[in-house]
Amino acid sequence: MGQVYVAVCGPDPASPDVATQAEEIGRLLAKAGAILVCGGLGGVMEAAARGVQEEGGTSIGILPGSGRSAANPHLSVSIPTGMGEMRNALIVRSAHVLIAVAGEFGTLSEIALGLKTGVPVVGLGTWELAKPGRMVVDPIVRASTPSEAVEQALRLARAG
Amino acid sequence: MGQVYVAVCGPDPASPDVATQAEEIGRLLAKAGAILVCGGLGGVMEAAARGVQEEGGTSIGILPGSGRSAANPHLSVSIPTGMGEMRNALIVRSAHVLIAVAGEFGTLSEIALGLKTGVPVVGLGTWELAKPGRMVVDPIVRASTPSEAVEQALRLARAG
Amino acid sequence: MGQVYVAVCGPDPASPDVATQAEEIGRLLAKAGAILVCGGLGGVMEAAARGVQEEGGTSIGILPGSGRSAANPHLSVSIPTGMGEMRNALIVRSAHVLIAVAGEFGTLSEIALGLKTGVPVVGLGTWELAKPGRMVVDPIVRASTPSEAVEQALRLARAG
Amino acid sequence: MGQVYVAVCGPDPASPDVATQAEEIGRLLAKAGAILVCGGLGGVMEAAARGVQEEGGTSIGILPGSGRSAANPHLSVSIPTGMGEMRNALIVRSAHVLIAVAGEFGTLSEIALGLKTGVPVVGLGTWELAKPGRMVVDPIVRASTPSEAVEQALRLARAG
Repeated sequence: MGQVYVAVCGPDPASPDVATQAEEIGRLLAKAGAILVCGGLGGVMEAAARGVQEEGGTSIGILPGSGRSAANPHLSVSIPTGMGEMRNALIVRSAHVLIAVAGEFGTLSEIALGLKTGVPVVGLGTWELAKPGRMVVDPIVRASTPSEAVEQALRLARAG
Repeated sequence: MGQVYVAVCGPDPASPDVATQAEEIGRLLAKAGAILVCGGLGGVMEAAARGVQEEGGTSIGILPGSGRSAANPHLSVSIPTGMGEMRNALIVRSAHVLIAVAGEFGTLSEIALGLKTGVPVVGLGTWELAKPGRMVVDPIVRASTPSEAVEQALRLARAG
Repeated sequence: MGQVYVAVCGPDPASPDVATQAEEIGRLLAKAGAILVCGGLGGVMEAAARGVQEEGGTSIGILPGSGRSAANPHLSVSIPTGMGEMRNALIVRSAHVLIAVAGEFGTLSEIALGLKTGVPVVGLGTWELAKPGRMVVDPIVRASTPSEAVEQALRLARAG
Repeated sequence: MGQVYVAVCGPDPASPDVATQAEEIGRLLAKAGAILVCGGLGGVMEAAARGVQEEGGTSIGILPGSGRSAANPHLSVSIPTGMGEMRNALIVRSAHVLIAVAGEFGTLSEIALGLKTGVPVVGLGTWELAKPGRMVVDPIVRASTPSEAVEQALRLARAG
């Protein structure tokens, strides 16, 4: 395959620990030559883009607003969509694989859209999901460190 | 407020029990004068629209495809979007409140988008959500019967 | 075919003459049993929806904003999209045929999207289009009265 | 202002002359440090992206499909939207200014959306527009060469 696009999703704002993880994920993706796709704002999105920038990689921010004023300053390119949270579906669609780091409801929507549309999801400290009365088979590939998350993501992207 | 729009989300196909619940929800919404919004396809979407039709109410199907061939035959009106699963965000945006019945990943994305954007979510046998290390405060208003789900939904729509 | 969906597009605000034409188009569509699709706001959109309402027909307003506050009061149902002018593509996609009445740039975008995607366009006092160096073959079916516009639209919808 | 994003729109396929113009526009945009936004497919889109690539610049392709198989090979990054022609609104929204080269109906929709939403439009051999009964004030800034088109576009982007 050609270029690998990896979406990194997570909360804005993010705690210092979560931001450190996201930045490390960004650095590792850039070192591997993958392109980061994210929502373009702060928190996990900004930390991941900063990590990519530190390694001279490429990042894309797909913004909810119709302008670029809310974009973080580390993105290679940004796309204002004016679609609000509907743009989460564009982030997922642009990615070969998705890494969810911690996360609030926006991240949960991206996890769900990924799982619905066949984009594999790697999770680092993110949502646990269960349906009542079902045996739990976790649909998220769990990782416990940034490097494990990136390894799993690149493996899944190449297998996809 | 004027008309109340209630989204009903759930799996396609649906088990007979779940379809029976969705049809009852549709009937109760129509009796209360609320407008049903759904994804326009089969399973829970079709059963809810059938319930609305039985009571002479109004239902809207917001379809993922660019044509109407996959629409169920019980809808008052249908909107082909050609947006695929991205249309889930339109369903949520069109609704004052969302009722999730059982559900697969598509339903989970609608729950998450509702919670993210301030559309209250009533759940009937649907997803349980948890983040590691957090005290669980369930963001979904749980119901145990169709009539309880509709009561809660109408209460939340009026309060919203 | 089943239900016929006809989009009516035009300026907001509209001159009294143009509004009178749009209202007549709405009445004629409702009498013919067709469903009106429009952008849900004022001007031509409101006049057409008023005409539909006068005849007890069905109209759908696909709104640019994320709420219903800007919707005109004559719509049967409304869909807030939060997509801004991008929602013009939804209006076109929902219609078997499009009637353009007068029109500003928004209407021009709907005409163009219709012609691009194979939705026939009937024009009543609307844009003239030409490419330099080309023989002009007008892609718009021209009408000179509301009744002629509706006749042409229904003929094209049934042929489509 | 920071980075300047310029959309280049036009037909696919394109005649050799039109493709030569688009490629020259791409080269000039890259030399000026502007980022190209386009629809990511062939014809004018491909020629412009090739021009950008020749000068080591950055180009973004916003694709209509849900995958990247139709993307031209000269793009720096690509975004599959799965939105079909609705993605034209994303191209316009991402740009500070739009250059329309020749063009079919898709290009016309982008011109109209630009004019509707305040994105200035520079035209090189593209559509002429007129409304009946109106004095013609051309809303498109006309250029007669690629270098004039780029000059005008950059001037308008900086003024915006």
